[in-house]
Amino acid sequence: MQKLKGIIQYDGTAFAGYQVQPNGRTIQAEIETALQKMHKGQTVKVTASGRTDAGVHAVGQMIHFTSDLDIPPEGWERALNAMLPDDIRIDDIQYADAGFHARYDTKGKEYRYKILNQKDPDLFRRYYSYHVPQKLDIAAIKEACRYLEGEHDFTSFCSARSTVKGDKVRTITKADIQPEGNELVFIFRGTGFLYNMVRILVGTLLEVGKGERKPEEVIAMIEAKDRSAAGKTAPPHGLFLWEVFY
Amino acid sequence: MQKLKGIIQYDGTAFAGYQVQPNGRTIQAEIETALQKMHKGQTVKVTASGRTDAGVHAVGQMIHFTSDLDIPPEGWERALNAMLPDDIRIDDIQYADAGFHARYDTKGKEYRYKILNQKDPDLFRRYYSYHVPQKLDIAAIKEACRYLEGEHDFTSFCSARSTVKGDKVRTITKADIQPEGNELVFIFRGTGFLYNMVRILVGTLLEVGKGERKPEEVIAMIEAKDRSAAGKTAPPHGLFLWEVFY
Repeated sequence: MQKLKGIIQYDGTAFAGYQVQPNGRTIQAEIETALQKMHKGQTVKVTASGRTDAGVHAVGQMIHFTSDLDIPPEGWERALNAMLPDDIRIDDIQYADAGFHARYDTKGKEYRYKILNQKDPDLFRRYYSYHVPQKLDIAAIKEACRYLEGEHDFTSFCSARSTVKGDKVRTITKADIQPEGNELVFIFRGTGFLYNMVRILVGTLLEVGKGERKPEEVIAMIEAKDRSAAGKTAPPHGLFLWEVFY
Repeated sequence: MQKLKGIIQYDGTAFAGYQVQPNGRTIQAEIETALQKMHKGQTVKVTASGRTDAGVHAVGQMIHFTSDLDIPPEGWERALNAMLPDDIRIDDIQYADAGFHARYDTKGKEYRYKILNQKDPDLFRRYYSYHVPQKLDIAAIKEACRYLEGEHDFTSFCSARSTVKGDKVRTITKADIQPEGNELVFIFRGTGFLYNMVRILVGTLLEVGKGERKPEEVIAMIEAKDRSAAGKTAPPHGLFLWEVFY
């Protein structure tokens, strides 16, 4: 048996999310179906660094799987990309140590969230960036980002539907916003993210940018440990799982 | 009765083309359906500067229609955009002179064609730019562009399925390729374009860029007045109707 790891990209638009579920097309199911074909009907389980929700994209999701087929990494890449639908792509397949685990070995992740900040929407970007027509105070957003960085209990920034066990203390090592072409891109890097955490951070920071909240209110939001203290959850389609660190 | 004109954008991916046809979703039918709802079931005909094929996009297509409704231009814009599907958008609606005709008054058009010229495809651009992994000789493409500019009989660059009446003499006022971010963009401006002409020009220029044809071969291709003398037809999804001139 060989353990292999690879980086997958996907356009989350037409998926019900990453993880296999009874109803709806999922990224995991598409990859497992492709692997099953290569293994003459035998089930091959794929493990990712974590799930993503419906509509959320990835450019650097990590997966691993094991196989008894004797195929070199480049062969896996060609074979899988030929079988996968055109909204999923796998790259950089390599042999992994027997002990490697795409989820348990994760040291951190980077998410990016794209905002189209102009009066009119851009229909060619409608699945890939969130249209915010209001003028945004970038300096205020950057100030609020400073309060989010560091180790905090992020209960206020976690969906009430979360089923996470254990505490909600996480460390954000970087929170920032930067222009990229005609878009604004939020960057969040951290040791781990709670359910919907990035989308709630973005929703909150946009309220700061619109002047509906002051940057320093973020401090009280964190202290409240109450989801209702923070801002709205931004929609999924601006969000990209950018990179997973090991 | 008021005549109105407006600029429409559309993502051609999910359409069978611009023009109404018995089978398949079309841009014209979607706009006419929206107008029909505003006119209590009465049919309102929409006229565009010309058709576009399945998968071809537009950022500056011009349309006109007439109506007996007393709605100011901004009201039309709001009402139509609220009713149109999210892959069509109308902007810049204005009153037009009674004699204005979106098709007959056209003085010229600009098309752009986007190429993703890198080894790996980008799944987020898969509907909006044509992936060409081979290295391209941009200087050779630019030289070939010079031979295309001017007034020529473009029979060799017109689909054999064309039903155009009259001659195939057209004037290309600008043919060029330029980098834009990580893409290459072909720009064609001219008095008129034959059926599939831009896609055949792009297919031919890409063969020049790959070194399969010499730039000066374009001269003989034009003189041949024979579709088989020119290169392949590039796929529709890289093509954008960029602007219509009046």
